[in-house]
Amino acid sequence: MTARKLHLAVAQLGPVQRSDTRVQVVRRLIDLLEDAHSRGAAWVTFPELALTTFFPRWSIDDPAEVQAFFETEMPGPLTRPLFDAARDKGVGFYLGYAELADGVQYNTSILVGRDGQIVGKYRKIHIPGDAQAVDGAPLQHLEKKYFAVGDLGFPVWQTPDAAIGMCICNDRRWPETFRVMGLQGVEVVMAGYNTPSGYVQWNEPIHLRMHHHLLSLQAGAYQNACWVAAAAKAGVEEGNPMIGGSCIVAPTGEIMVRTFSEEDEVINFVCDLSVSDHYRANIFNFAAHRRPEHYRMIVERTGAQPPA
Amino acid sequence: MTARKLHLAVAQLGPVQRSDTRVQVVRRLIDLLEDAHSRGAAWVTFPELALTTFFPRWSIDDPAEVQAFFETEMPGPLTRPLFDAARDKGVGFYLGYAELADGVQYNTSILVGRDGQIVGKYRKIHIPGDAQAVDGAPLQHLEKKYFAVGDLGFPVWQTPDAAIGMCICNDRRWPETFRVMGLQGVEVVMAGYNTPSGYVQWNEPIHLRMHHHLLSLQAGAYQNACWVAAAAKAGVEEGNPMIGGSCIVAPTGEIMVRTFSEEDEVINFVCDLSVSDHYRANIFNFAAHRRPEHYRMIVERTGAQPPA
Repeated sequence: MTARKLHLAVAQLGPVQRSDTRVQVVRRLIDLLEDAHSRGAAWVTFPELALTTFFPRWSIDDPAEVQAFFETEMPGPLTRPLFDAARDKGVGFYLGYAELADGVQYNTSILVGRDGQIVGKYRKIHIPGDAQAVDGAPLQHLEKKYFAVGDLGFPVWQTPDAAIGMCICNDRRWPETFRVMGLQGVEVVMAGYNTPSGYVQWNEPIHLRMHHHLLSLQAGAYQNACWVAAAAKAGVEEGNPMIGGSCIVAPTGEIMVRTFSEEDEVINFVCDLSVSDHYRANIFNFAAHRRPEHYRMIVERTGAQPPA
Repeated sequence: MTARKLHLAVAQLGPVQRSDTRVQVVRRLIDLLEDAHSRGAAWVTFPELALTTFFPRWSIDDPAEVQAFFETEMPGPLTRPLFDAARDKGVGFYLGYAELADGVQYNTSILVGRDGQIVGKYRKIHIPGDAQAVDGAPLQHLEKKYFAVGDLGFPVWQTPDAAIGMCICNDRRWPETFRVMGLQGVEVVMAGYNTPSGYVQWNEPIHLRMHHHLLSLQAGAYQNACWVAAAAKAGVEEGNPMIGGSCIVAPTGEIMVRTFSEEDEVINFVCDLSVSDHYRANIFNFAAHRRPEHYRMIVERTGAQPPA
């Protein structure tokens, strides 16, 4: 099959501290976008909640204090320069941020085209952690306190360059996320994440955090024959370490390039979208091989139930 | 949580040639079961289509010639000694074989308890390959010619030792397989396979065959918090090489032990079933985090359709 090349970049962010302003963060994002452009990349993936520190590590009850982490318009006055840079350089992007819409808080990402216009929006569906602080826990992970479950499904957008889908952080661990996009012929999945190096709820060996991150992306890419571009917010934020491991994964399930640091860092790779075609014509020819009549339990129950 | 130890073994088979008799193959299986028992294992996983050579590599039209590869009763006179050995040693097993039932051919596995009695049966659902020989192809893979799609779903059986499920070969590449068992609280998935080292339909780099095999098992284990015991029929059968890589994978997605050879070889590992409990109480608490309302496409379409 004829190669179809698309040059992707991933822009990992180092830590964003609570005192960092939007202006400072957007300046870093623009620098990274320009770096990606200088390498020839057409699209760049930024992290989840890229504009602020990962505030769900704290239990905050003051509404004004919480609202300071959220965006009420996108672009707004402080984020518009990033959209302008995208248009000027002709580089599309994925950006994660906290969204306040009609009084509801979401963990959101947008896809912005190479003309600087918003192509689509996704709201995180698999919200991890707790709704209330766990007494005595060494770490908190309170996404369920701050974010409603996304209400937009897992859409895929046919851009001029590729069919692109989005997910956010914990979504990547759930095979349903990738499969719903795979069933729409997704060619590139973009994902941002903030993944604490330690685990809140039990004493899981710390090396497994990176292993599970990479395993989930590799499986999602292979089993749906798509490219995956994943961007961390990494390093030590407010004393709390988060993993890096931003990467671009091929439809073979192979990691083609990944970040070395836990700081601001760009990686890039020229992806051949036609690799997907081989898998979709053969081993992952869904129409020929899937058997939805045997998958009904996936939608008919939420939690596990013991065998009859 | 309190450890719950279960000692599992996997018995990889080297090649079975067409001239090898059932008596010879069953003798090898008994030797392997006794080896597993001597190490203290309580259960052993044998490969897919363990009793014969992997005949779907050939296009055979003579009904009598085809039928010679199939079992019409289980146990039959030639396989009963394996069941007797299981009962005598107190070792349960998974065994794959070609089943002829009421005139329909299936690619089947059975789970046999430590008392030598059949606990359950599974019939392969994801039948790969072609229904007719591909003209001029260097290799054929004709499972769709020989096997009907399984009609028993993906059951899980609560044995005295663990909740055990089964799948066969290509099933392991499909996340739906593991998820349907995960939704029944499966603790151990047993899987047999025959995976040609070369790929039929396109010139995929050969190293990817092993990578995809291991990746699929690791993702299935992690994403459903279960142990996986997978057994290859390996080596060069009738001139056709097949991968080994039989292994036992933990709910962490880590490969704990794997075979070295492409010959008859036993591996074993003492599995702590309580590891699953940590994941199921936290990151993979399905009841708390799954959102089936956003998964409906998984059962509502079979093939991929482009985005609206």
